[in-house]
Amino acid sequence: MVSNKRTVPLLVIHLSMALLKRLRNLRSEENTGFGTNSNSTGGRFINRDGKPNVIKKGLGILNRYSWYHTMLGMKRSRFLLLLLIIYICINLFFAGIYYLIGIDHLAGVNTGSPWKNFAEVFFFSAQTFTTVGYGRISPIGFAASTVSTFEAFIGLLSFAIATGLFYGRFSRPQSFLRFSNHALIAPYKDGTAFMFRLAPYKNNNLTEVEAKVTMAVTTEENGKQTDRFYNLKLEIAKIEGLALSWTLVHSIAEDSPFAGMSKEDIASTDIEVMVFIKAFDDVFSNTVVSRTSYINKEIIWGGKFRMMYRANEDKSKTILNLDQLNDYDPVQLPAPATIPA
Amino acid sequence: MVSNKRTVPLLVIHLSMALLKRLRNLRSEENTGFGTNSNSTGGRFINRDGKPNVIKKGLGILNRYSWYHTMLGMKRSRFLLLLLIIYICINLFFAGIYYLIGIDHLAGVNTGSPWKNFAEVFFFSAQTFTTVGYGRISPIGFAASTVSTFEAFIGLLSFAIATGLFYGRFSRPQSFLRFSNHALIAPYKDGTAFMFRLAPYKNNNLTEVEAKVTMAVTTEENGKQTDRFYNLKLEIAKIEGLALSWTLVHSIAEDSPFAGMSKEDIASTDIEVMVFIKAFDDVFSNTVVSRTSYINKEIIWGGKFRMMYRANEDKSKTILNLDQLNDYDPVQLPAPATIPA
Amino acid sequence: MVSNKRTVPLLVIHLSMALLKRLRNLRSEENTGFGTNSNSTGGRFINRDGKPNVIKKGLGILNRYSWYHTMLGMKRSRFLLLLLIIYICINLFFAGIYYLIGIDHLAGVNTGSPWKNFAEVFFFSAQTFTTVGYGRISPIGFAASTVSTFEAFIGLLSFAIATGLFYGRFSRPQSFLRFSNHALIAPYKDGTAFMFRLAPYKNNNLTEVEAKVTMAVTTEENGKQTDRFYNLKLEIAKIEGLALSWTLVHSIAEDSPFAGMSKEDIASTDIEVMVFIKAFDDVFSNTVVSRTSYINKEIIWGGKFRMMYRANEDKSKTILNLDQLNDYDPVQLPAPATIPA
Amino acid sequence: MVSNKRTVPLLVIHLSMALLKRLRNLRSEENTGFGTNSNSTGGRFINRDGKPNVIKKGLGILNRYSWYHTMLGMKRSRFLLLLLIIYICINLFFAGIYYLIGIDHLAGVNTGSPWKNFAEVFFFSAQTFTTVGYGRISPIGFAASTVSTFEAFIGLLSFAIATGLFYGRFSRPQSFLRFSNHALIAPYKDGTAFMFRLAPYKNNNLTEVEAKVTMAVTTEENGKQTDRFYNLKLEIAKIEGLALSWTLVHSIAEDSPFAGMSKEDIASTDIEVMVFIKAFDDVFSNTVVSRTSYINKEIIWGGKFRMMYRANEDKSKTILNLDQLNDYDPVQLPAPATIPA
Repeated sequence: MVSNKRTVPLLVIHLSMALLKRLRNLRSEENTGFGTNSNSTGGRFINRDGKPNVIKKGLGILNRYSWYHTMLGMKRSRFLLLLLIIYICINLFFAGIYYLIGIDHLAGVNTGSPWKNFAEVFFFSAQTFTTVGYGRISPIGFAASTVSTFEAFIGLLSFAIATGLFYGRFSRPQSFLRFSNHALIAPYKDGTAFMFRLAPYKNNNLTEVEAKVTMAVTTEENGKQTDRFYNLKLEIAKIEGLALSWTLVHSIAEDSPFAGMSKEDIASTDIEVMVFIKAFDDVFSNTVVSRTSYINKEIIWGGKFRMMYRANEDKSKTILNLDQLNDYDPVQLPAPATIPA
Repeated sequence: MVSNKRTVPLLVIHLSMALLKRLRNLRSEENTGFGTNSNSTGGRFINRDGKPNVIKKGLGILNRYSWYHTMLGMKRSRFLLLLLIIYICINLFFAGIYYLIGIDHLAGVNTGSPWKNFAEVFFFSAQTFTTVGYGRISPIGFAASTVSTFEAFIGLLSFAIATGLFYGRFSRPQSFLRFSNHALIAPYKDGTAFMFRLAPYKNNNLTEVEAKVTMAVTTEENGKQTDRFYNLKLEIAKIEGLALSWTLVHSIAEDSPFAGMSKEDIASTDIEVMVFIKAFDDVFSNTVVSRTSYINKEIIWGGKFRMMYRANEDKSKTILNLDQLNDYDPVQLPAPATIPA
Repeated sequence: MVSNKRTVPLLVIHLSMALLKRLRNLRSEENTGFGTNSNSTGGRFINRDGKPNVIKKGLGILNRYSWYHTMLGMKRSRFLLLLLIIYICINLFFAGIYYLIGIDHLAGVNTGSPWKNFAEVFFFSAQTFTTVGYGRISPIGFAASTVSTFEAFIGLLSFAIATGLFYGRFSRPQSFLRFSNHALIAPYKDGTAFMFRLAPYKNNNLTEVEAKVTMAVTTEENGKQTDRFYNLKLEIAKIEGLALSWTLVHSIAEDSPFAGMSKEDIASTDIEVMVFIKAFDDVFSNTVVSRTSYINKEIIWGGKFRMMYRANEDKSKTILNLDQLNDYDPVQLPAPATIPA
Repeated sequence: MVSNKRTVPLLVIHLSMALLKRLRNLRSEENTGFGTNSNSTGGRFINRDGKPNVIKKGLGILNRYSWYHTMLGMKRSRFLLLLLIIYICINLFFAGIYYLIGIDHLAGVNTGSPWKNFAEVFFFSAQTFTTVGYGRISPIGFAASTVSTFEAFIGLLSFAIATGLFYGRFSRPQSFLRFSNHALIAPYKDGTAFMFRLAPYKNNNLTEVEAKVTMAVTTEENGKQTDRFYNLKLEIAKIEGLALSWTLVHSIAEDSPFAGMSKEDIASTDIEVMVFIKAFDDVFSNTVVSRTSYINKEIIWGGKFRMMYRANEDKSKTILNLDQLNDYDPVQLPAPATIPA
């Protein structure tokens, strides 16, 4: 995910003076939250997965991480493994305490070697923690009974927390959107357009889908590098429902920051197109958002997306082919009109 | 639910040239998210139950389905049955393991025939999984104890997941709206109007209810079939509270795509009226949405809804009769004014 | 809560012709969702507790009630009692089954009289349902074991549902607002105003609080009674935070439906002022709403609310006295200017 | 947290007549929800932690507190301690009942001294409440069995409530924003500006962040003290994403209530700047809000915030140093232009 955007800091001078002057005159946005000092920021702003490319320091890890956000964002396998490890550790801890108290305070233990004894108290601990309580082994005396009373309480609370985490994980509103791997410069009407597409890939229903696309360009002003942000105007920026795929189209008209840029200009310029999608999900009845970004290497000069849906055989339903999301046909584009200096 | 809309692909030429020309000149909407290429889509866009009439392919079933969305949308009886089946399967699985380990590792088993033995370990498994743990049967030795320790853990997590699913199911914001089975072309003021109605059928409170109605018509342009979408203007498109029934009225004025259409035109044209309702529910304190659609067969030429609410006997309350939602009286409509070609 | 608003159907003719004519000319709202046919509706529209004064009929009780909405709206004591009754009933049911299977299929039962035996199986059932499973009594044989396996499963699911209900109940966003029992016609600037007040009575934080006030008047038009709805303009209709009490003020200016009404006019007219409050709660991070209504009997002619908050002794905090919400001082109002016919 | 703002009630007369006159003529806001009578309110309006500085009285504690809001707002350690205390109390209560019934109704008790007996029933109670149910001790007879049946039920419900509380606590949408301890009067363009900054300190993603800043000044009008509220215009009041820190800038232009105020004026005037932030959190998919306020003592005359983020070594990421949030360099400010009387 690490881009080398700023390892070639002089990239920007590849742009002709005319293009640079044009970009400086275009209306740029200041409210992106990223600042404009190119020397204070490194790499792309937003990673492809939508997370900001920022590291936070200067606060202890417990203060810097919301463990709930962390547990919710974790991969499923890792989350389950973590729960299992915690379960084993807690039982080892309580088994240790029972062992120290002495196994003669537990009625019904099949005594044997120290290892066998420890296994017995470990299983007793698990039976207490999970509230199974077969009763073959049971605590006698004040110390062991008190510890088991406390362990059962901890068991119930742990389980309460696990329940909350599970619910939090699967009820977490998500957009379930996939973006095409590349954005295309494609023929559009009499000229060209910047296009990318997205598709909902699960059985959720998105309505009132809005897109906002911002382009960041690093330009040089008075010898100082500056990040400038341009709002990319879309042909259709809001649709009422997203049942099929959606190709977002930014026509490269006169007021576009792409106007006048050649294939080489795009390849050699420090460009990042940031995408922000907002929609309403019917099942969660909640607003969901999705982000991604395309840097210059992810923009293809000359391409046209292939239709990814078609009617089924008896023409009674529409089929959306999700594996065709990235499919495009290469096309020849004319060189862009040069911008007078 | 399968419509045969496109099995008679030449339907559209039933419309007179004057009507077709009119529809082409009317302002149509491009932001519905369905595209306009009639050859790429099949059947109605939205089913009567509000779900898009789309099949997704090209991704494995695990990626294509959000199991949570699926479990939430399932019918109650099916959901409970599924939980029961999962419960039995997990117990069969663990019973198999205990059986393989050997029933001599379980103290207290009443041994007998292999079937009886398997039944005993199955019940022991269930007592462990549910954390009942009577203790008549209890594990002895490392292998059986470890498996039961793990099973109790799985039991608790399964239960945590079930708790989340139950809560997710019944806390899922729903609009609890019913739509009339048919839409009517009804007399309205000096002309006619397209009407349908809806009513909240449960003890929930909806406020700030907004309706958006879009009509899709397949027209032929230069020999190519195209889907066109028209926003249907409503007399009242937003009401502050929905305590009674609500009849939505689209007056068939000059700027309506229905203008000039006769009973036969509607019957023979590929029409779909898509309805989208958005409201705020007081109990869930959440936005809820509801969708449906009416195709040409579900539009009745000449009808008038009957009042479905009345004061109670002592005039102290209003009674809403939900079983009268579909009641209408047939009325005679004049033929529409012809549109000059 | 039953008003007798329409038991004196001729009330409205008490209004002078001039006032009636004025009301007919004032801009009324049609989007309240209540319709305008006074003969179809009975009593007040909204009860004092904010629920619509509507009864739904014509659907089976299971379809008409969302049991979740019902369980969430229930009083706490009733909810807990209901859970206890369900608990006892389920145990009686399973106890019956075990009894029919025969108590010799339960090991460890202290047999005795039939009543004693039934008590034993009842307690065994409860120990299974709650998954306590002491094990003094335990099932032997296929039938009893199968039933107990199933009962423990039902127990866990019931508990999952109860957990969801508890969470649903206390996480349900509520506004915790109290409204003054009466609305006042109070002196305001050079004239009078319709005022009522509200106060947040719990430790929640409301921000962005919006009020919408609508007045319903039954007027007679061409011998037919009609409900008309007027939006009451507020001096301040939105405040940024609600930490103290808030007095809502509708100045009785020329464009107010109250203009020209005397004490007697209000007392004898079929008036209902419906109040709708919407706010954002910081703790729930959710929008909360609150409604109430004032009918003519709940409007006091000539009164002024007493200040209900003051600085504490060292002037470091503000104290809000919630028990003073309804306190007002009677004041003498001049007779309203007569409206020329 | 107690400010002594109003312990020096004559502070306000330190302002020159010209400044007071200016403040009276500036457009002030009435919709803050705090009222304008300075004698009815005490101390600052909003505490630094964002809670209103108000005490509610006149209602019983059970009505005045939403126990759910209270349990959610409690510190974690206190919350866990409270649960433990409740757990012990419930068990003491039930142990008392079993003790009164008589320990001969519990089979398996190791009898001894009264204290030992009570400990045994206490542990039996805990084993019932947590549904562990080892079974070494089990109830015999109607009375003890009934109580334990009821206790297990209470146990399950308590656990259901605890589960809900845990989930409510960690799923509670929070903004995780930190504000700088001080606001600065800093050089800005050709003049000065009022500035403070904030930073997101956890791994959450905030988008669409909006700020609203209001300044409260106590002025004297006709010998009566009045609170006046001024909306402070921000250079940028909304940003699209908050990945880095954000410095909020209110330029002290002609229409600012700060215009013309010297260091001494600010120090001696009863000023409170209230900050309200609203954003959308990606993980919770919910709106989150955050508030704070700065009183005159927390405003520093002449300071400039130090940059708190920089590119990492290979310039592939941006590092945000959270411990530098409060860092500023003192700067010399020119005296403000005097306001003609």
